[in-house]
Amino acid sequence: MLVNGEEYKTVWMEKGNPSSVFMIDQRLLPGEFKIIELKNHYETCEAIKDMAVRGAGAIGVSAGYAMAQAFIESGNNRFPEIYIEKAKERIEATRPTAQNLFYATNHVYNAAMKSSNPREIAIQEAEKNADEDEDKCKNIGLNGNNLIKDGCTIMTHCNAGWPAFRNWGSALSPIYVAHREGKNVFVYVSETGPRVQGAITDWELEHENIPHTVIDDNAVAVYMPKVNMVIVGADRIARNGDTANKIGTYPKAIIAKYFNVPFYIAAPTTTFDLECVSGDNIPIEERSQHEVLTKTGITKDGRRETVRLYSVNATAKNPAFDVTPAELITGIITEKGIIKPTEEMIMQLFSV
Amino acid sequence: MLVNGEEYKTVWMEKGNPSSVFMIDQRLLPGEFKIIELKNHYETCEAIKDMAVRGAGAIGVSAGYAMAQAFIESGNNRFPEIYIEKAKERIEATRPTAQNLFYATNHVYNAAMKSSNPREIAIQEAEKNADEDEDKCKNIGLNGNNLIKDGCTIMTHCNAGWPAFRNWGSALSPIYVAHREGKNVFVYVSETGPRVQGAITDWELEHENIPHTVIDDNAVAVYMPKVNMVIVGADRIARNGDTANKIGTYPKAIIAKYFNVPFYIAAPTTTFDLECVSGDNIPIEERSQHEVLTKTGITKDGRRETVRLYSVNATAKNPAFDVTPAELITGIITEKGIIKPTEEMIMQLFSV
Repeated sequence: MLVNGEEYKTVWMEKGNPSSVFMIDQRLLPGEFKIIELKNHYETCEAIKDMAVRGAGAIGVSAGYAMAQAFIESGNNRFPEIYIEKAKERIEATRPTAQNLFYATNHVYNAAMKSSNPREIAIQEAEKNADEDEDKCKNIGLNGNNLIKDGCTIMTHCNAGWPAFRNWGSALSPIYVAHREGKNVFVYVSETGPRVQGAITDWELEHENIPHTVIDDNAVAVYMPKVNMVIVGADRIARNGDTANKIGTYPKAIIAKYFNVPFYIAAPTTTFDLECVSGDNIPIEERSQHEVLTKTGITKDGRRETVRLYSVNATAKNPAFDVTPAELITGIITEKGIIKPTEEMIMQLFSV
Repeated sequence: MLVNGEEYKTVWMEKGNPSSVFMIDQRLLPGEFKIIELKNHYETCEAIKDMAVRGAGAIGVSAGYAMAQAFIESGNNRFPEIYIEKAKERIEATRPTAQNLFYATNHVYNAAMKSSNPREIAIQEAEKNADEDEDKCKNIGLNGNNLIKDGCTIMTHCNAGWPAFRNWGSALSPIYVAHREGKNVFVYVSETGPRVQGAITDWELEHENIPHTVIDDNAVAVYMPKVNMVIVGADRIARNGDTANKIGTYPKAIIAKYFNVPFYIAAPTTTFDLECVSGDNIPIEERSQHEVLTKTGITKDGRRETVRLYSVNATAKNPAFDVTPAELITGIITEKGIIKPTEEMIMQLFSV
C-alpha cells in the first residue's frame, strides 16, 4: 500500500540481495516511518521478538524469510545442518504463541530440506509464503468490496490494516479495494484505547488518501447511526462464530445491533480455530495495568514520552481482548467468501 | 468528603475571615491536591473563569461566595453601590452558560440589597446557597442508597463526584452514603476518554477508601455482566427524560440494556430543562480535536506534559456529550426521590 506516494509491503527480501530482510519498523509508527535492514536471521529474529513487526500474517511472512536467511547463511558454516536446526529453534522461540510463525517456518524448512538445492528452494518457498499471505488479504478485499456501495461510510476498530499482514490487511482490505476501484468511502477510525492502535489505522488511511477521521471510542453511539457498516479484524474465531478481537470490539457490536448497522468480521481462514467450540473457550489475556494508566506519544519538541494520567495509587484492569458472540455478527469476510457466523457455514468453508 | 483522611468541601468561607474564599484547585487534580485562598471577589472570579472550580453546583456555590465578598469589600469603597453592580456583572461574565451561577449570584444580591445589614445577609445567603447545594446532593445519596444492597458492584462514567458540587456529588453520592453506612460496594471507574475524567473519580474514591478499579472505556462489555447497576450524572435532562451527559454515556446505556443491567441517572432537579421537549432539542458541543489527538499527564520525573498520540496530519471529531434516550434509563435519582424517566413523572416532580 502507499506511504508518501510509494508502494510498500510490510516485509520483503530484495532480488540480488537475498540475505537481507527489509521491514517497516512498526514500533515507530505513526510518529516515524523507517525501513530497517536485517542482514541475517539473528537480526530478523530480534526484530520479530522486539515487535518491529506485528500481526499474525506479517509475523508469519517474516519468520519464513528468517528461515530462508538461515539456509543461505548455512553455506558459510562448517556444520550447516546444525546451524539450520538451531536457527529454526531460534525463530520459533521469538513469538511462541503466533500460529502462523510455526506454519511458515516449517513450510520453508521442510521444502528446503527435501530439495537438492536447499538455499534456492528456501528463498522460493519464503516468497511463496509471503505471496500467499498477500493473496489471501487481497481476496478478503475483493470479497468485502462487494458489500461496499459508492458513498459508503464505514467504522473500524483497532488496526487490521496492511502492516499486520504482508499487504492489504484484513478489515481495511475491502476499503482499499473499493477506494482503488474509484468508489467514495469514508472511514470512522476509533481510537482503540488503551493502546491507541487507531493511530496506525489513521496513518495508513492517510497515506492511501482515503477520507477518514479519528473518534474517541466513547463517541461510538453518536457516529454509529451515520455509518453503513462496521468492519473489524479478528484474533481468533471459534467454531460457532464467536470472535475474539481487540478489547472494545464487543461494545461496538452491541451498539451496531442497537442501531441495526451490519457488523462484519474480516479475517483469513487461518484465524478460525475449529478446536475451539465457542467463545467461552477463548482465554482472555490480562495485560499490564500501565497500558491503561499511562499513554505514550510525542511531545511538542519531538521527544517520545510516557505520561501517567491517574493518581500514583490508581489500579486498573486491562483485558486485551473481548469475545463478540456470533449473534451480533452479520457476516465473516474471508479469502474464500463471505459467510454467516454459524458452525454449519464455518465447517462448510473448511470442507471445500 | 475525605482527602488524606480529613473532611473537605470543594469551596468554603472561613468564620472570622469572611473576606476570603477557599477552594480545591481542581486544575491540578489528581496529580496534586492544593487549596487556594481567594482574597477578594476579583480572585474568585478568576478562579471560576480559569476552571479552578468546575461542575454546575460548585460553580454556583463559588459565585454566591464571590457576590458576598463583593458586599464585604464595598464597605471600603467610596461608591459601594457601583462597586457591587460591577462585581455582579463581573461574576456573571465568568462562565456565562452556567445556569446555577446566575441563580446564586442573584439570590445573594437580592437578599442583601433588600436588607439593612447587606454585608451580613450576603454572607448568610451565600452560606445558605452552599448548604442547599450540599443538602440536595446528600439527599440524592440517601435516595440512591436505597437501590444499593450490601456487596453491590457499580459502574460509573465521567466524574459526577463531590468536587463538581460543594460536597457528596450526584452519581457518587449514593455510593458514599452506602459506604458510610457500612455496606460493601465496589466501583468500576471508566476512563472517560478523551479527557479522562475517570482519573478524578478514581482519586476521590481512593481518598474515601472505597474499593474500585479503573477500566478503559473499551472494556465496558467485559465488565458490564459483573455489575449490579450503572449510575452516572447528567448535564441536562429533557422533559421526556432524554439525558445529555458526557460522551460515552449513551454507549454504556445501550450495553447495560443488552445485559439487562439497571442504568440510573443521578442529578439534582436543577438539571431538568422543562423547556426542552426531548433530547433532539439538546445541542451537542463540538470541542477541539486536540482533546482527542493528545493526552496530558505527569512524566516519570514529575513534569506535566502533553503528548500527541497520532500522526501530525490526523484529524478528529470530538462531541463533548451524547444524549441517552429515556427508553434506556431505568430511573432518575433526584433529591426529591427516584422517578421513572417519563414526562408524566418529571412534571409531577415539579408540581409538588
